[in-house]
Amino acid sequence: MIVVMKSMCSDEQVNHVLAFLENHGLSGHLSSGVERTIIGVLGAVGPSGTPGSIGGINPMVGEGLEGLPGVESVLRVSKPYKLASREFHPEDTVVDVPASCISEGIVHIGGSDVVMMAGPCTVESEKQLMTTAQAVREEGAVILRGGAFKPSTSPYGFRGMGEQGLKLLSKARSEFGMAIITEVMTPSDVAMVSEYADILQIGTRNMQNYMLLDEVGRTKKPVVLKRGMSATFEEWLLAAEYVLSQGNRNVILCERGIRTFEKLTRNTMDISAIPLVKQLSHLPIISDPSQGTGRRDLVGPMSLASVAAGTDGLLIEVHPNPDEALKDGAQSLTIEQFRSLVPQIQAVAVAIGRSLIME
Amino acid sequence: MIVVMKSMCSDEQVNHVLAFLENHGLSGHLSSGVERTIIGVLGAVGPSGTPGSIGGINPMVGEGLEGLPGVESVLRVSKPYKLASREFHPEDTVVDVPASCISEGIVHIGGSDVVMMAGPCTVESEKQLMTTAQAVREEGAVILRGGAFKPSTSPYGFRGMGEQGLKLLSKARSEFGMAIITEVMTPSDVAMVSEYADILQIGTRNMQNYMLLDEVGRTKKPVVLKRGMSATFEEWLLAAEYVLSQGNRNVILCERGIRTFEKLTRNTMDISAIPLVKQLSHLPIISDPSQGTGRRDLVGPMSLASVAAGTDGLLIEVHPNPDEALKDGAQSLTIEQFRSLVPQIQAVAVAIGRSLIME
Amino acid sequence: MIVVMKSMCSDEQVNHVLAFLENHGLSGHLSSGVERTIIGVLGAVGPSGTPGSIGGINPMVGEGLEGLPGVESVLRVSKPYKLASREFHPEDTVVDVPASCISEGIVHIGGSDVVMMAGPCTVESEKQLMTTAQAVREEGAVILRGGAFKPSTSPYGFRGMGEQGLKLLSKARSEFGMAIITEVMTPSDVAMVSEYADILQIGTRNMQNYMLLDEVGRTKKPVVLKRGMSATFEEWLLAAEYVLSQGNRNVILCERGIRTFEKLTRNTMDISAIPLVKQLSHLPIISDPSQGTGRRDLVGPMSLASVAAGTDGLLIEVHPNPDEALKDGAQSLTIEQFRSLVPQIQAVAVAIGRSLIME
Amino acid sequence: MIVVMKSMCSDEQVNHVLAFLENHGLSGHLSSGVERTIIGVLGAVGPSGTPGSIGGINPMVGEGLEGLPGVESVLRVSKPYKLASREFHPEDTVVDVPASCISEGIVHIGGSDVVMMAGPCTVESEKQLMTTAQAVREEGAVILRGGAFKPSTSPYGFRGMGEQGLKLLSKARSEFGMAIITEVMTPSDVAMVSEYADILQIGTRNMQNYMLLDEVGRTKKPVVLKRGMSATFEEWLLAAEYVLSQGNRNVILCERGIRTFEKLTRNTMDISAIPLVKQLSHLPIISDPSQGTGRRDLVGPMSLASVAAGTDGLLIEVHPNPDEALKDGAQSLTIEQFRSLVPQIQAVAVAIGRSLIME
Repeated sequence: MIVVMKSMCSDEQVNHVLAFLENHGLSGHLSSGVERTIIGVLGAVGPSGTPGSIGGINPMVGEGLEGLPGVESVLRVSKPYKLASREFHPEDTVVDVPASCISEGIVHIGGSDVVMMAGPCTVESEKQLMTTAQAVREEGAVILRGGAFKPSTSPYGFRGMGEQGLKLLSKARSEFGMAIITEVMTPSDVAMVSEYADILQIGTRNMQNYMLLDEVGRTKKPVVLKRGMSATFEEWLLAAEYVLSQGNRNVILCERGIRTFEKLTRNTMDISAIPLVKQLSHLPIISDPSQGTGRRDLVGPMSLASVAAGTDGLLIEVHPNPDEALKDGAQSLTIEQFRSLVPQIQAVAVAIGRSLIME
Repeated sequence: MIVVMKSMCSDEQVNHVLAFLENHGLSGHLSSGVERTIIGVLGAVGPSGTPGSIGGINPMVGEGLEGLPGVESVLRVSKPYKLASREFHPEDTVVDVPASCISEGIVHIGGSDVVMMAGPCTVESEKQLMTTAQAVREEGAVILRGGAFKPSTSPYGFRGMGEQGLKLLSKARSEFGMAIITEVMTPSDVAMVSEYADILQIGTRNMQNYMLLDEVGRTKKPVVLKRGMSATFEEWLLAAEYVLSQGNRNVILCERGIRTFEKLTRNTMDISAIPLVKQLSHLPIISDPSQGTGRRDLVGPMSLASVAAGTDGLLIEVHPNPDEALKDGAQSLTIEQFRSLVPQIQAVAVAIGRSLIME
Repeated sequence: MIVVMKSMCSDEQVNHVLAFLENHGLSGHLSSGVERTIIGVLGAVGPSGTPGSIGGINPMVGEGLEGLPGVESVLRVSKPYKLASREFHPEDTVVDVPASCISEGIVHIGGSDVVMMAGPCTVESEKQLMTTAQAVREEGAVILRGGAFKPSTSPYGFRGMGEQGLKLLSKARSEFGMAIITEVMTPSDVAMVSEYADILQIGTRNMQNYMLLDEVGRTKKPVVLKRGMSATFEEWLLAAEYVLSQGNRNVILCERGIRTFEKLTRNTMDISAIPLVKQLSHLPIISDPSQGTGRRDLVGPMSLASVAAGTDGLLIEVHPNPDEALKDGAQSLTIEQFRSLVPQIQAVAVAIGRSLIME
Repeated sequence: MIVVMKSMCSDEQVNHVLAFLENHGLSGHLSSGVERTIIGVLGAVGPSGTPGSIGGINPMVGEGLEGLPGVESVLRVSKPYKLASREFHPEDTVVDVPASCISEGIVHIGGSDVVMMAGPCTVESEKQLMTTAQAVREEGAVILRGGAFKPSTSPYGFRGMGEQGLKLLSKARSEFGMAIITEVMTPSDVAMVSEYADILQIGTRNMQNYMLLDEVGRTKKPVVLKRGMSATFEEWLLAAEYVLSQGNRNVILCERGIRTFEKLTRNTMDISAIPLVKQLSHLPIISDPSQGTGRRDLVGPMSLASVAAGTDGLLIEVHPNPDEALKDGAQSLTIEQFRSLVPQIQAVAVAIGRSLIME
């Protein structure tokens, strides 16, 4: 951490900062330039094993320093997330999910190959789910998506079938051998949803629902953590750090578009998140072009772009009859559209030396 | 709702839209211009008393229409929030909060006068809280703020004293007669926090934590609903609608800054939210210039600006020794700064024909 | 255009709107629903050939309507850009640029193949330019980029070599047979820059410099129009409309990233612009991953993503020694990096049925 | 400037950075912490009087450093603008404009009092201008606004009356004694517009039109520099630096709203710009609530908020008959609305110890 003093700060203010640091068990290293005085903060190393020691310097110290008289700014040199960082864990993390539809019985997310997760936005009925599951499985999807608990912007919108929807997902798993990913929205539901799901999804609105992050962190279930709709990369990785620091190392990040000024798309999908997160972190990252754009006609091109940029997986909404979808019909592919997209995805994956798991 | 068809749509596609509407109990009214065909949707009136009937048209129908072939866009004419809208309730809502420090025994939020809520960002100790409470009460604050459960971006940051902090707040209430506002972060804490608090605060990260909104909606406690950091006005009012639709009519909105590209402030405080929300809705609105800017040196001017623009209250962070604050020290006023600010706020309030409740 | 009246508007206000329309030679078509009155505006067709007639309805009428009492909002149904729209010109526009390095002597931008434009951000010296030109030509670039007039955020930054830089670009063209693209910043330079350049580039800061757009519109030179850093798709296509409406049909759009809240990248590159612009417009679109990300380590993945999403060309900064670049060194590829990237781009292009022009 | 090296950088990379600095006449000061190596850059002092010496370190050096291997980030400690900074010129700058309507004959912008600038968005006719000028003068405006050259998003929109409009403005000045502010859009018009105008306005789209900034910098005319619609404070002050560095010290900044995700307002007016710019810079700052919100019903509250936050002036659109305005009718006040607003503005100004110049 580096403290930059105002150009007209007094010696007393500098000494105040140094005393503040000492009070927090840290020491300051002074450099006086022509224009500015700068104080480098040397971090104390806490007792090993305690969270406080991981980052060296307590994040609150920085906030405190910003409030001191004479301080212009506080520059953080170290990354605030630790367990999520590439420095902490240089090799790629691979998250394993059981799926009987493939011969090995396990899907590896974050490995050499690309994983297809597909299914309806929302579970609406047994017929709708089974039809879709069968179709996406036939085209190569190994993980079935489907919301049983749905966040709805309006209280008058459809909020999902609840546990009944989870039972249908479970039935689809038995029938087609795919793993199941579904959203969990509140801490008290985590145990119940975990009984049915293979992967717990944390939605964009809950990326900073810290008690929910704590709770899924206490399970061992793989967690797909969607990026908050206006979350910086740092905030996103800190949210992952919540889950990791509770002991659950099976975190998968998911780019799903951010909020910008543009009105013709629901979100602006940030494809650069894929290569950048792979530099900052060892965690796998997947892409959701359905939510990421909100437009069916952009799902294909953005799927191909995601694969070209290095995504580890795709999460695509497919509906047997999008016209009748209870939710997000405008961004769901038809089964025919999905069928014609998969070979294109495979071709791009092969072009960059990977492969879409199809088996 | 109006459906705009693509300029080159077919008759079959138009008929498909009309049939879709009929399937949902609605009727379409066709206008064919030179450039476009437009279909006006006439809403069915549901059985009175059911949520579905309030808005006339189910919000999901719009999503479904967007996905139909030949449809270019769907324009929503009615506001999606109902109970929160000025049309539904033309008079200003006034939320009453008990506070023994004033002779009437009740603070009216949203009435003719402006309310001062002040206190530390976070409850850190009995001494810190009592010192601050006494000081802000002396300057005219009638509501004491203080976080016992704190959202921290990092899992290694301070997350608050929990119930012990609530007990201290309760003690401060007994001693100084101010009402207490404090944050609640998760549904399972609502009952417990409600035992201590006079106003429940929903933080910016939880504005779309729907199960939390449902839960506070089932209490009768006043709720301060902070704007999500990238929430549109419509989304914010829909979040309020969640609380209102559960039967709790005591909702107070709070502008606390939105996320923009600017880096010198923590947030960009949107002062225009104050007069605009007052047009769209009958609910009171207050301002949080501490979170709204993240900089102590901007709290004063933005407090004055808020009052000039018509805010019903201010929520200001004050700390007896901001240098030692465990959280958000950089944006807390000292007691001396708060003391010199209050008369300026009073002067501006008087200039626009209101008054800061000081008694 | 559709005028939505406020729910409590008076008959007098409705009549006022109708009279306003009549005054502007338009007629209004009234529909009164239960909740709202809506007025459809039927456009007058102006005298053929005049700009006013192209869009049917003068854009100023909409602004006027928004100001009338009782009007809640004005919904524009037609796209405000005409010559740039896919409806006006259903087939893809192909812009031809002479380049002696390929056997046909012409590069087609917007056709079946993908075009590589590469070179230094800024022309710094003859040696730097010639070295880079030779290298990028050897790897398949057919168009050479290089700034002679540079926008610099600071008045103390390097603003380019001016006409001397243009002469060097011209010399590189003679030597290597590539076409030249370079920026023009002000109307009075257009004639001079046109003498040297094959393609005129309008930078992001000048996307709405209307007099510059008019001026390049009066030439016949191909124009690359970069997206403004916070321009919507509609504003971008309206800027293209300026050039087109002056008679220059050789407009190429260029996605170069938009401004968001994210701090780790210089811009957020909006890959969805590529497929979306291709739907809205017949104009070619290219990608600038160097400016679009501001980070050398993201240029490769974002180039591949652009091609996968359908871009017609890439504009990549390459410098023989980025450490010594006078401008934007952090985002320039080394020659070695460029060399290893091109075959990957070719592979992805082939995977989607296109090809990188390499000859 | 501080160079932060990557945590796993090599000694060779560190030496490379040091050599790079030496090549640019700078020296580096190494600090090796447990986690990071940091290099403080000591700036060379250039020959006095040359632009390069003003900032100590050439801005391009930072860009070059960012591109070096092993470098994680480059932190700029000094502000990149110099002449515009409060450090360079601690006292407030007051810009004087001649206006015969007040007894002193001069309006001081940036002094103890608040200045009202009002008039139509666009000059449309002699009658419209004279009617408005007379009315706003009667209510206390001392500066008359009115566009003769107008930026129009669409090429088919109204682009102003040109020099004819300037002549009408000049006539209004003769008649009512107000100073004239009007926009100049391109360098070749600066001389001509300067003949008529007392204040040159640079619009939001031209904030980074550097050749225009240079050109107005070569005049001595006061310049109102509007904030770019997505400009950071730093970029805005660097644009001011362009004008100042050409020798024109009469720069007035103008907050006019920034672009955000919100759709109900045309822009989000950033009131915090007022107190923050006053800290960063000595230049006066005024507010444009008409452009800043795009909604007539918000102009009043945002004018009051601006004054409460410390603005030096207001720029308000007034039209005798907004229903018939050729441009921006929706955001223009009627004369009656303006008349009732001025006393409220005066009251708030007095409440904070200032006064609206009314004479």
